[in-house]
Amino acid sequence: MMNKISVSIVGGSGYAGGDLIRLLLFHPNVELKQVTSERFLGKALYKVHPNLRKQTDLKFCAIDELESCDVIFLCLPHGKAMGSIEKFNLLADKIIDLSADFRLNNPAEFKKWYGEDHKFPEKLNEFVYGIPELHREEMKTAKYISSAGCNATTTILGLYPLYKEGLVEPDRTVVEVKVGSSEGGNRSTESSHHPVKDGSVRSYQPTQHRHTAEIIQELSFGKEIKIHFSATALDIVRGILATSHVFLNQELEEKDIWKLYRKYYANEYFIRIVKEKEGNYRYPEPKIVAGTNFCDIGFKKDEESNRLVVISSIDNLMKGAAGQALQAFNIMNGLEEKTGLEFPGLHPY
Amino acid sequence: MMNKISVSIVGGSGYAGGDLIRLLLFHPNVELKQVTSERFLGKALYKVHPNLRKQTDLKFCAIDELESCDVIFLCLPHGKAMGSIEKFNLLADKIIDLSADFRLNNPAEFKKWYGEDHKFPEKLNEFVYGIPELHREEMKTAKYISSAGCNATTTILGLYPLYKEGLVEPDRTVVEVKVGSSEGGNRSTESSHHPVKDGSVRSYQPTQHRHTAEIIQELSFGKEIKIHFSATALDIVRGILATSHVFLNQELEEKDIWKLYRKYYANEYFIRIVKEKEGNYRYPEPKIVAGTNFCDIGFKKDEESNRLVVISSIDNLMKGAAGQALQAFNIMNGLEEKTGLEFPGLHPY
Amino acid sequence: MMNKISVSIVGGSGYAGGDLIRLLLFHPNVELKQVTSERFLGKALYKVHPNLRKQTDLKFCAIDELESCDVIFLCLPHGKAMGSIEKFNLLADKIIDLSADFRLNNPAEFKKWYGEDHKFPEKLNEFVYGIPELHREEMKTAKYISSAGCNATTTILGLYPLYKEGLVEPDRTVVEVKVGSSEGGNRSTESSHHPVKDGSVRSYQPTQHRHTAEIIQELSFGKEIKIHFSATALDIVRGILATSHVFLNQELEEKDIWKLYRKYYANEYFIRIVKEKEGNYRYPEPKIVAGTNFCDIGFKKDEESNRLVVISSIDNLMKGAAGQALQAFNIMNGLEEKTGLEFPGLHPY
Amino acid sequence: MMNKISVSIVGGSGYAGGDLIRLLLFHPNVELKQVTSERFLGKALYKVHPNLRKQTDLKFCAIDELESCDVIFLCLPHGKAMGSIEKFNLLADKIIDLSADFRLNNPAEFKKWYGEDHKFPEKLNEFVYGIPELHREEMKTAKYISSAGCNATTTILGLYPLYKEGLVEPDRTVVEVKVGSSEGGNRSTESSHHPVKDGSVRSYQPTQHRHTAEIIQELSFGKEIKIHFSATALDIVRGILATSHVFLNQELEEKDIWKLYRKYYANEYFIRIVKEKEGNYRYPEPKIVAGTNFCDIGFKKDEESNRLVVISSIDNLMKGAAGQALQAFNIMNGLEEKTGLEFPGLHPY
Repeated sequence: MMNKISVSIVGGSGYAGGDLIRLLLFHPNVELKQVTSERFLGKALYKVHPNLRKQTDLKFCAIDELESCDVIFLCLPHGKAMGSIEKFNLLADKIIDLSADFRLNNPAEFKKWYGEDHKFPEKLNEFVYGIPELHREEMKTAKYISSAGCNATTTILGLYPLYKEGLVEPDRTVVEVKVGSSEGGNRSTESSHHPVKDGSVRSYQPTQHRHTAEIIQELSFGKEIKIHFSATALDIVRGILATSHVFLNQELEEKDIWKLYRKYYANEYFIRIVKEKEGNYRYPEPKIVAGTNFCDIGFKKDEESNRLVVISSIDNLMKGAAGQALQAFNIMNGLEEKTGLEFPGLHPY
Repeated sequence: MMNKISVSIVGGSGYAGGDLIRLLLFHPNVELKQVTSERFLGKALYKVHPNLRKQTDLKFCAIDELESCDVIFLCLPHGKAMGSIEKFNLLADKIIDLSADFRLNNPAEFKKWYGEDHKFPEKLNEFVYGIPELHREEMKTAKYISSAGCNATTTILGLYPLYKEGLVEPDRTVVEVKVGSSEGGNRSTESSHHPVKDGSVRSYQPTQHRHTAEIIQELSFGKEIKIHFSATALDIVRGILATSHVFLNQELEEKDIWKLYRKYYANEYFIRIVKEKEGNYRYPEPKIVAGTNFCDIGFKKDEESNRLVVISSIDNLMKGAAGQALQAFNIMNGLEEKTGLEFPGLHPY
Repeated sequence: MMNKISVSIVGGSGYAGGDLIRLLLFHPNVELKQVTSERFLGKALYKVHPNLRKQTDLKFCAIDELESCDVIFLCLPHGKAMGSIEKFNLLADKIIDLSADFRLNNPAEFKKWYGEDHKFPEKLNEFVYGIPELHREEMKTAKYISSAGCNATTTILGLYPLYKEGLVEPDRTVVEVKVGSSEGGNRSTESSHHPVKDGSVRSYQPTQHRHTAEIIQELSFGKEIKIHFSATALDIVRGILATSHVFLNQELEEKDIWKLYRKYYANEYFIRIVKEKEGNYRYPEPKIVAGTNFCDIGFKKDEESNRLVVISSIDNLMKGAAGQALQAFNIMNGLEEKTGLEFPGLHPY
Repeated sequence: MMNKISVSIVGGSGYAGGDLIRLLLFHPNVELKQVTSERFLGKALYKVHPNLRKQTDLKFCAIDELESCDVIFLCLPHGKAMGSIEKFNLLADKIIDLSADFRLNNPAEFKKWYGEDHKFPEKLNEFVYGIPELHREEMKTAKYISSAGCNATTTILGLYPLYKEGLVEPDRTVVEVKVGSSEGGNRSTESSHHPVKDGSVRSYQPTQHRHTAEIIQELSFGKEIKIHFSATALDIVRGILATSHVFLNQELEEKDIWKLYRKYYANEYFIRIVKEKEGNYRYPEPKIVAGTNFCDIGFKKDEESNRLVVISSIDNLMKGAAGQALQAFNIMNGLEEKTGLEFPGLHPY
């Protein structure tokens, strides 16, 4: 039997970190060595992640206590990884960063969207953008992977075949994502207060969402494109539904669209085309992918115009964070891609 | 003191009917005479509308038992009013119809969107489209008013100033409405079953929503326009949030947009511009207008393009149905427009 | 026309204060003069209570700016009223306190349950306990009224006829209240964070809830009684459902219970007996009383034992706080008891 | 490697059936052969259980098409298994029934609670009552197991150590269970309609819940006991929280209770004692066990009386149905008890 891959997590008290711990504890090829948290130093993991009660004896340790291991996952707040990446690289050859720090290839774009100079711009090109379905080959030999933003992942996977084939009017796409409250992290805020948030439908980022930069980077293929992006926050905990309105630059029928999506995704385990004529779940829904690493994608062609509505959905903490990172980890380490990621979700949820 | 206006409701067991009964019972100038329901014939109103317990002794009667009165509100299922309007007209001079039957001026459009020939096309032009903010003057002398669709009302009120002034690229507007479950009526269905619906975000009408026809009718002003409309159903009971992405055909700054909305709506009691720099409620939210007749409208100009995101919100049963109908009733009868409609909503909700 | 009663609110930024402002703004006999908040000093009321947008031009003022008026409502945090009551009494003859400070007649009980000495024990007897259905006569001449706790109100109103008539085994009653998140106030906490609270059913006070003291005070009638009380927090915003299991000390059938409740409550506008054989709402539900001043009460006799299950429900911010206080205000000022409190609630909600 | 155990499910379109299919598909020692549904005959399983998309090619078959196998799970509506058990026994030696038909040992009790004569009373004693923690030894050689009721399981596991040791006043225990909507099954009803159910707190069975019979059977140990049981339905999908108020017949401190629960449950993988001094999850919560086979149990001793409040929680479809059945299956077949049941649940959920 092969040796287990030793893994540590830096910043494991947040929601993405918690899901990653859970996945790694059950991964047959992984030994989870250490999990850091300055805030919960010395506490048992289950005190923060109550679903892990009786699953592990690990306690949160300090960053300074980190020992060397095979792979480090970074789950730090945005802006914290770029300044400390070399330090972690002394401990582990391979690093998977779940923050936004190394997603954009172009430091000028980083400055524009994140409002500060990148601290380590020459490192940007060493990171592979973390969506396996787009960058699998690079991941196989990568030492650094930067997990994609959750809203970006949902949008990109929904639109990739269309943009890749050049079928879209480049400046007209409108994307409306609806997101759950776990996107905001595990710190309570005024706007996450239950009486405020319960039943709310809140236009929290009608323009200028930072994930727009990633979407453009991954879908432009050398052309100038525009993504008119808005985000609305809902009273759900996990999940994203992206409704993308694209305008086709040629006559395509629904069967053509089917063929296109099958061409790109038929062999992708974690992508499912969902388009039913009847039943409660005719299009993708966050409920159905909650807890899973699936990205469900559906579409509807407007009979009256050249608009195609693409509906895509993921669990923001799984395919949008911990699950995507683990999928990349599997590829990077030559393991079967779905190892540890087979939970099919609950129904009803 | 003036005589009370006698009013009856045809089809009062549904949600819009229930809200209308509630409003009319507390209206100082109205005597609610009769409420029909074939399904609940002879039952006390509160058996169907439990909030009316101890508020009225009325029982549901049959349509055949209807007596003459001053105004009849029709809350029948779509398709039922157009064939029986003359019968009801024998009982009351004034009729306010809450169904879709008389909303479209053009019978060809009716056929296209509703899939059947209109049964009384020559009557269509006698009905005033029921949004008071657009058709107040006509309502003052109207005998027939057709209440607007709830999703249409939200969209139209949000976009009216822009289209009226000709500021919009005519074929690019994308509208995403998010709607509550009360839109689906009070009959349980497979898709309204709690384990299915709870926490769901369901793309139920990505294209071809019938309300598109009303929106085009009211916003076209003689031009050819396109409204790319989608509707997503959420796990809330009351409320609609419309996110409308319009592309301006000239350079406008946010202060210009402010001025425009003030020009049209500053004197409209039921329209509020909501655009705050801080706090939990920076843009309109269905929670805040639930139970009220308000339409809250906000907007954000994309700094990177000519896109303007307009966010508008109403309670679908109030400003989108019963409240709108009562507002029209007040105008039609020379009463102060907000009579009986002053409830400001609950916070928290 | 009679002069309006001038009223000010001390501590108006919380949820109970917000509901009280809303009610007073629409009360025909009241002029709302001032509302204080140190935290939101100088801000328009609607910035904190978004449903009040366009309803009033009032701004929050400081306590030091308070002018004299007819009645002051105190909505301060628990413990703050007892030390400052004399100061407020210089400004207004009549005071209605919504905190817990003056609810208990016995300072020893106060110390036991609130863990500190009462700062003004000699004043306790001047306060009338604020449930109008039990203390109406005293209220008519009262200068000081202390609004009852929300969970206590729900429980007391449900059980009052049984205890008053001495029909209950004195040491066996078990009360389980289920409560909404607005009970916890408008400050966000770790446990009110949406991802934590959404869908939660949390046993937050299985024993030793402070409201037990009030319940015993109001139901003991000179006897020694025990109330075994537990509180569970739910994922709803407004509302309380109390399930009280009492054991009858004599044979009573359901029709006897009916008679008993009618004897006490038939003439109480704000109390409704809810006990239906069919339909969705056979027993009281928080949804149906949300936003109203009603207390709905139902019951079921166990055929196998002497247990009677009493189900009672109120809106904690209305009949459990602002509404109850306004009802007491009306009585105290010789007004019709339901003035300003007639909103029947929304259905569906 | 051992041969796989061949398994079929009769009545696999419901929620418990769906969870069972999901568990069996991932069980390393099981081959799921057939799943019947008359209603969805011929349809792919994922059409009914959308989380199974891409997980299996199985289609629902008819009962008449069933082939012989090692174990049959019966997920039929209550009342359907007792008349057909012999037929299924011809196909499989071992049967696990998830309905209520074979839970009660005493046919008289069956008649009393289910209102009809048992169709096969002589078979009752061949069935082992399905809670493994109480009947593990019998299960090892059993041919027939009857899964326990979900509310009964929650209550029994919470109270078992106390009753087993004879520490409880026999006629005073009050149990309040709060339950999710999936308990009602997958057929929509008037009361499961979203606008009705959303935010509801419904006292649906204040007395005479049928699970009382099972609880008494399992906790009486030859004595006469009473369980005063009530059930309240909440706006959650999965989960039960039982709050049990028991009155101790001797002086016990919390540390004694701790010791007692450790004695019975320290070696039970699926039972966790949850009793924290701080944090959001101080007592058991349905959210934390959702999707898992855990039963979390906590308690609080009332300092003022001999009342002990026991709080227990399970997922009604897992530990209350499919998970419990699979746990019993593992024992019955000599497999490790937690095989296929290790999913630790999601956080946040």
